[in-house]
Formats: sequence, structure tokens, C-alpha cells
Amino acid sequence: MEPTASFSATLSMTRRAWLGLALAVAALPCLAFAGEAMPSWNDGASKTRIVRFVEDVTNPASRNFVPPAERIAVFDNDGTLWTEQPMYFQLAFVFDRVKALAPQHPEWKTTEPFKSVLEGNMAGVAASGDHGLLALVGATHGNTTPEEFSKIVSDWLATARHPRFNQPYTELTFAPMKELLAYLRANGFKTFIVSGGGIEFMRVFSERVYGVPPEQVVGSYVKMKYEVRDGKPVVVRSPEIDFIDDKGGKPVGIDRFIGRRPILAFGNSDGDFEMLEYTTSGPGPRLGLIVHHDDAEREYAYDRKSPVGALERGLDEAPKRGWAVVSMKDDWRKVYD
Amino acid sequence: MEPTASFSATLSMTRRAWLGLALAVAALPCLAFAGEAMPSWNDGASKTRIVRFVEDVTNPASRNFVPPAERIAVFDNDGTLWTEQPMYFQLAFVFDRVKALAPQHPEWKTTEPFKSVLEGNMAGVAASGDHGLLALVGATHGNTTPEEFSKIVSDWLATARHPRFNQPYTELTFAPMKELLAYLRANGFKTFIVSGGGIEFMRVFSERVYGVPPEQVVGSYVKMKYEVRDGKPVVVRSPEIDFIDDKGGKPVGIDRFIGRRPILAFGNSDGDFEMLEYTTSGPGPRLGLIVHHDDAEREYAYDRKSPVGALERGLDEAPKRGWAVVSMKDDWRKVYD
Repeated sequence: MEPTASFSATLSMTRRAWLGLALAVAALPCLAFAGEAMPSWNDGASKTRIVRFVEDVTNPASRNFVPPAERIAVFDNDGTLWTEQPMYFQLAFVFDRVKALAPQHPEWKTTEPFKSVLEGNMAGVAASGDHGLLALVGATHGNTTPEEFSKIVSDWLATARHPRFNQPYTELTFAPMKELLAYLRANGFKTFIVSGGGIEFMRVFSERVYGVPPEQVVGSYVKMKYEVRDGKPVVVRSPEIDFIDDKGGKPVGIDRFIGRRPILAFGNSDGDFEMLEYTTSGPGPRLGLIVHHDDAEREYAYDRKSPVGALERGLDEAPKRGWAVVSMKDDWRKVYD
Repeated sequence: MEPTASFSATLSMTRRAWLGLALAVAALPCLAFAGEAMPSWNDGASKTRIVRFVEDVTNPASRNFVPPAERIAVFDNDGTLWTEQPMYFQLAFVFDRVKALAPQHPEWKTTEPFKSVLEGNMAGVAASGDHGLLALVGATHGNTTPEEFSKIVSDWLATARHPRFNQPYTELTFAPMKELLAYLRANGFKTFIVSGGGIEFMRVFSERVYGVPPEQVVGSYVKMKYEVRDGKPVVVRSPEIDFIDDKGGKPVGIDRFIGRRPILAFGNSDGDFEMLEYTTSGPGPRLGLIVHHDDAEREYAYDRKSPVGALERGLDEAPKRGWAVVSMKDDWRKVYD
């Protein structure tokens, strides 16, 4: 069969199907406009600011029009797209993983920081500092292939529960933020996660939960090497950290992975300061946003002095830099689905 | 104006425009099927193999059906998407850049490998080895912001000419490969470049020339750091190489940037061997392809012993690994546009 004949046959048989599918796909952006966009947001300054920005940059008649290819929006994950209290969820994974691996490592009973983890002594873990944390990450994340690691995370997500809400961690993603991601995509934006969290940890659930495919997730990563292991070509994750995608690392990660300065950045802690600064200092229209966790009842209330997700410089400088501070309490009709 | 009111207004005013645009966009895949796909390919085993693979993985009734999100195709650049003789085009850029910067560096007249470059002594440059090459790349690529570097490359591309064809280098991109990229995208594939070349060098022209946006370009990169320079937040490229996206680095680059094993890989030299091996050893349908440069008249003829783009192991193992070897001479109706 000649390829050209095959094309013609495919064309005549399936033109109707194609057009039907095309119409269905084409209708999606319209549906995003019909009804109310982002129903979990209260009508107020924050929502208005977002909607006006999007309407402006997508309006071909506006002098602020941005072509679709340049509509890059970046989102922090911990504390911005999902909860980060009482500890980063990936840290809960690390602790659970240490416990799961402990029988194979009897020496951990007497070696810090593993000893403290096994005894549930958070103060002891904290006392081990960054060095201890890297040891934990190395021991729990290294020497696996991405496929193996993905399976481990996936299994953990299926069973682990948040200590306060008793829900799977992926249920503690913010409904208003998921609506915002969808609203931006319906308006031709490409949405990226740019997080201090592990890139391969987030990729396990980013597509299912946020609609963000693996190739649009930027995060911290370990060194990796390629090898043919037992006849099977694999990439192997080393225990050694290669890149930390936090603070000044975020603009570097953005440049390395995306190669374009975003026009919208959304964060929640001072770890996002440089990403917001880098994004909003480019030429043309830019929007910087910060989630302010001020809702102890429905989620958590913390900022300047929090051991997790501290927000101090961002709060101080948001007004003069023109960044919108989004109040979880006032701006969000609901927090979770 | 309330955001919701604004939505309704937008909807009623522009529903016709939306549908018109949607239909136009929806028609694109059909157009790709109407007429002949990939007209620069001769009808033959290579084209048939590609078309059958694409028809198979996009057919929902096939047991080999692959959902669009997993239709990842990766392409080497040098020698696969454009010519790489008589030297990698980025190396021509490096040499021209050394000459342009020489007046600011009088010491280069007496320091290798700069001396050899300035004297046009290619044997001397080659004698300086990898160490010399890294020195050249560092001196010509470092200490710039991505924006500055992009401008330098862009200016060079506008004026530099290939020594044999006397054309801008971006004119020496392969017409059949550009058609293949477009054909894959029309069939729901996401096309990535995965090259040993510099990531920021390629991003200058990848979108315009190949239709591949910056965020879908994976390549070698230098270390970078973020700083606020004269009040302007910038990322600064260091002269130090961070990652080399070649040989075993390619599967690592794929995992790091894309996070999914591709289903189609196209290369041309043994630098692509591991990428082809990694891609085609995954489960399910996979296609590995190699451009064989056997066309001295229209382009170049070289393989096993070439100092640039040597292809030896790939040629030897292609048959038993099921990789298609594409003959430039026999499979391509034309090489350049």
C-alpha cells in the first residue's frame, strides 16, 4: 500500500469524524468563557486583576497583546498549588520512606538523622540541618530509575493521609488555583510549575491533578546517569543533588527549562521572591501574585515567622513592586474541592 | 466592570469569530492529510515505515494506540535537522566570535587555542583538544545574559555564510525533516530537539526554522546564576559547562527536561546511539531512525571515519535493533528548500 493512497482513504473515511472531533475541541475555549470563569474565586480585587490582565494580553487590539507562544505562566507548587503545612508533603514522603526502608538499614537506628525520623523526633531531624536533609533525600530518592521512583511515589500517594485533614495529599490542592490554571490555558497560556520540590516527585501527579504535563514541570533534581542494566537501558538517579530550584535557582530553572521570561508568576513564600522579581521586571505587561495564607480555619495562617513557607520580604515589597497579594480567606470562596 | 459581565459580553460579541477561528484551526490536521504528506520524501521503505508507524499509534482502534500526551518525538539537530559539515555550525560561530572579540584580547595572539583560531589553523585548534574547545566556548559564550547571547547569535546568523553553499546557516536545514516535524505535530505529537549543541544557541532559531518552541529544545548548557545587575534582575551565563547533552547525556537530558520516554527518536551519528537505544527499548510501539549522509553531490557523504558526526556503531547495529537507516540520496527528493 502506498502511503499516499492510504492518506486518501483515511481522509475520505474519516473526514466527518475529524471535523466532529475538531468542532468538539474547538468548542472548549468557548465553554471556558460560558458560565462563570473561576467560580471558586470571590469577585474582588484579586480576581478582577487576573481577569483584566488576561483579557488585555489576549486582546489583539490591545497595545499589551502578547502572542500565544509568549504567554508563559509559572506557578510555585508547595503553598501555592497545594498545602505545605505542617510540613512539605515531599518531606512526609521522605519520612515514610525512611520508615519503609528501615528494616533493610539496621544502622539507621543509631545514625542521625535517620534515628530521629524513626523515633518521630522532629526537633532532632531539624537539628541535623540541611546536611541531614540531603542525607535523607539521598537515601530515599537515589539509586532508582525514574520508573521505579515514580511507582514508589504513586503507591505512597495512594495510601498516605494528611495528619490534620485525613485526606490523600493530592486532595489538598487548591480549587481556585486549579481553576486559574485551566482559565489561563483556555486563553492560550502555557502553564508551568516551577518549584523547589523534586521534579520527578511532582511529575507523578502534576498531569492528573493540575493538567500540567511532565515536560512543563521544573523542580530540583539529582544527578543522573545512563546505563544498560541487565540488558535494559535505563537512567539511574544518584543520591547526589544536582540543582535546587528555589530562590535565585528559580529564574535559572526558568531560563534553562523554558528559555523565555514568563509574563505571569504566582508564588507564596520568599522562596518565590526571585521568580516574581525576574518575571515582573521584563518589558511589557507582567503580573506577579502571592497567595497569603491567612485562613487558619479552612487551611493555615502563617507568614513572616513560619518555619515552613515564610513570607516576609514578599509581603513588605509587594505593594511597591505592584504584586497582588491574594488573601486565601477573602479571595477564595472555597479552598479545596 | 464585573469580570462575569465582561465574560458574557466577550462571549456574545465574539462567538462567531471564535467558531470561525476554531474551524480554521481544526482544519489544519485535515490539510496535513489532504494532498501528499511530506512531499520531499521519495515513496519508499523509509517514508512508508514512518507513515505506518504514525497511522498505527494514532489509530484509536489499534492495540498500539498511544494517547497524544505520550506522543513524544525527539530529534538530534546537527546532521539530523541541518548540515554539520565541514564543521558544526556552532563551532563556526565560536570561531567568528573569537575573531570579533580579538581586539579586546591582545593576549589571544600568543595564547592557544585562540592563536590557532585567529590564524585559521584548524590543525592547531584540533590539537588543543577538548580542553581547548571548552576554553573557546567559555570565552565566547560566558558572562552574558541569555538576552545578550541571543542577540549575538541572531546577528551572526543574519550575516554568516556557509563556506560551500554560501547560504545563511539556517537555510541549510533539511526540507524533508521540517516536513516530518510538521507531519508529526499535525498528528498530535510533541516534537523536541535533543542535541549536543548549546541549548541557548539553538533556541534562537528553533521556533522560526523548525516550529519547535524554546521550551522543547534540550541541549548542552553552561552554569548560570541569578543576580540583580545595575538594578536589573538577570540570569548570567558562566563560562563553565554544566551539562553535555550528548551520548549517554541524551537520555539524561530527556528524562530531566521531558520526563517521559519518547516513542520516536531520529539521529544521525553515534552521539545519538544512546538516545535511540533508550527510546526504542521502552514498551509498546517505538521507532528509531538514522539519517545516513550518503549524498556528496547535494550535501555530504560520510559515516564511519568522519571527524564530524561519525556513524559506525549505529550503522552496524541498526538492522538488529530495527532502526530505519534513511538514505539522504535515495529517500529525499530534495535536501534543502
